[in-house]
Amino acid sequence: MSSPSPVDTSESLDPLDLTRLTQLLGFRLTRAELRIRRIFVECVQSFDLKPVDFSLLVLVDANPGTNQRLLCEALDVSPPNLAIVIARLVKRRLLRQVRGRQDRRMQHLHLTAAGKALLEQAEGRIQQMEAALANALGKTQSGLLLRALDLLARVEVELN
Amino acid sequence: MSSPSPVDTSESLDPLDLTRLTQLLGFRLTRAELRIRRIFVECVQSFDLKPVDFSLLVLVDANPGTNQRLLCEALDVSPPNLAIVIARLVKRRLLRQVRGRQDRRMQHLHLTAAGKALLEQAEGRIQQMEAALANALGKTQSGLLLRALDLLARVEVELN
Repeated sequence: MSSPSPVDTSESLDPLDLTRLTQLLGFRLTRAELRIRRIFVECVQSFDLKPVDFSLLVLVDANPGTNQRLLCEALDVSPPNLAIVIARLVKRRLLRQVRGRQDRRMQHLHLTAAGKALLEQAEGRIQQMEAALANALGKTQSGLLLRALDLLARVEVELN
Repeated sequence: MSSPSPVDTSESLDPLDLTRLTQLLGFRLTRAELRIRRIFVECVQSFDLKPVDFSLLVLVDANPGTNQRLLCEALDVSPPNLAIVIARLVKRRLLRQVRGRQDRRMQHLHLTAAGKALLEQAEGRIQQMEAALANALGKTQSGLLLRALDLLARVEVELN
């Protein structure tokens, strides 16, 4: 029996053949999304914000007094999942909930002063990231990509 | 006090202003990915496969005898998460693990006959979905989108 080599290359340690996956738009879309999601997280690392936290803060800042139902729709997140995000941001004192004057069951969301300050910094970082991405793509490709993504975001597929 | 109307439209029930989010490539990419992910799941609903299950089955079929390390790299999934996926597919008897002849610590993955049969059907459905997406985008836009996604999948962003 031969002595074992440091790395046993005899048993499928070559890189995998990905052809059947990389032919799929779905796979390539997911791969790109994952990469951009990681850059996003790195980019706002010092603020400890997940993409959904950031989106929620932006929406509440742009729509003060909004409620969970509208945020669920806008962010395409289920009510229980949104409740977790809101609880996390309330606990960090970035967000506060105010009971409705007309409908006391309704909770209206507002940013706190700390939330506004943190969002302003985070949004500045994300603008930098976005500028870098737009630059990497170039203006024409950037525009075409956005148009295609928007089409995909509302595409209907009939399957038999 | 007036009687409550069935829907209280007085407290911010208008759709939200999303402008600050929809300006972001990252947001639009995530939104498109989510939509395609849902279509994917619907499409293979009868096979009870998540996207990662499907990708793993395709890779094992295309690379019989492959191992967890190579699959982690190819699918960009952490070892603990991949182990969960593998356990799920082994339990469903779609996948089997075979101990390495040369390195007994290495587990090599193969599809079972049932796994092959299920994958063939699922892949047929996904091909239909892909054809519908390509059709919705048109040939030119499809090509441009794929090129842009591949660029994003490996983009490097320098942040200061």
